[in-house]
Amino acid sequence: MLSQTSEYALRAMSTLAYAPDQLTPTPVLAEMTKVPSNYLAKVLQSLAQAGLIVGRRGVGGGYRLARPAEQISLLHIVNAIDPIERITTCPLGLSNHGPNLCPLHRALDAAAKGLIEQFEGTTLKDLVSDPNSSKPLCDAETTAKLTVSIKKR
Amino acid sequence: MLSQTSEYALRAMSTLAYAPDQLTPTPVLAEMTKVPSNYLAKVLQSLAQAGLIVGRRGVGGGYRLARPAEQISLLHIVNAIDPIERITTCPLGLSNHGPNLCPLHRALDAAAKGLIEQFEGTTLKDLVSDPNSSKPLCDAETTAKLTVSIKKR
Repeated sequence: MLSQTSEYALRAMSTLAYAPDQLTPTPVLAEMTKVPSNYLAKVLQSLAQAGLIVGRRGVGGGYRLARPAEQISLLHIVNAIDPIERITTCPLGLSNHGPNLCPLHRALDAAAKGLIEQFEGTTLKDLVSDPNSSKPLCDAETTAKLTVSIKKR
Repeated sequence: MLSQTSEYALRAMSTLAYAPDQLTPTPVLAEMTKVPSNYLAKVLQSLAQAGLIVGRRGVGGGYRLARPAEQISLLHIVNAIDPIERITTCPLGLSNHGPNLCPLHRALDAAAKGLIEQFEGTTLKDLVSDPNSSKPLCDAETTAKLTVSIKKR
């Protein structure tokens, strides 16, 4: 349903939403999201280019959300990586379909619409303030170790 | 949202549903679905392995649906190619999440569930008997030419 890259982007954004006021270094983010560091670096570049996060290089550098978590939906994130496309014209280019989609592509478009609405309706704020389950991507032990290691820098 | 291969499989199945009682040769199906013939041959093999279509080789051979169109949902087709997976355990393997998903993966699982329900709720029969739009993948001119060419064999 989603590409691996989108999944990784969602993990990174959820983790950043959990500490919105600090810069999180890429290696720390890689450890918390269980994403290979080189791969994550590219994902973060895409997210920065899309204006969803801002970064600072060098010692004490890292990434943070570019705007409040309640203003970033899952759709913003997915669309920054692999946009979910609505189907607006016949993908086969059949001229006699004109602007009308056939029932197959109307069904696929309805599915895309449903998915878009679900992702649009959930923000990073919803994820981090959800009281009913584990914190997003939070492995208590790893987080404790990483926090200590950041403070030591 | 769907892979190219799934899209091609859906096109092929919709086209076969339109003529359920005859064997449609792969080259004809390739022309009607606008899918490269070699690529389509592999897709058809996967659909046959999944028990959704049956084929016969040789002169007059081709493929037809393995069961009535009302017994084949879009989900059967998509799942024969690239299954839509529900998320049942933490993809990061975080031990402290146990059987509980974090809010991110609960949101992604809800999206997968929604998509599965939409595809499960639409059969090939629904597509071919939809009175409100163009017939699935039907390019009147191409179909007419192909039908003549099949009859001539």
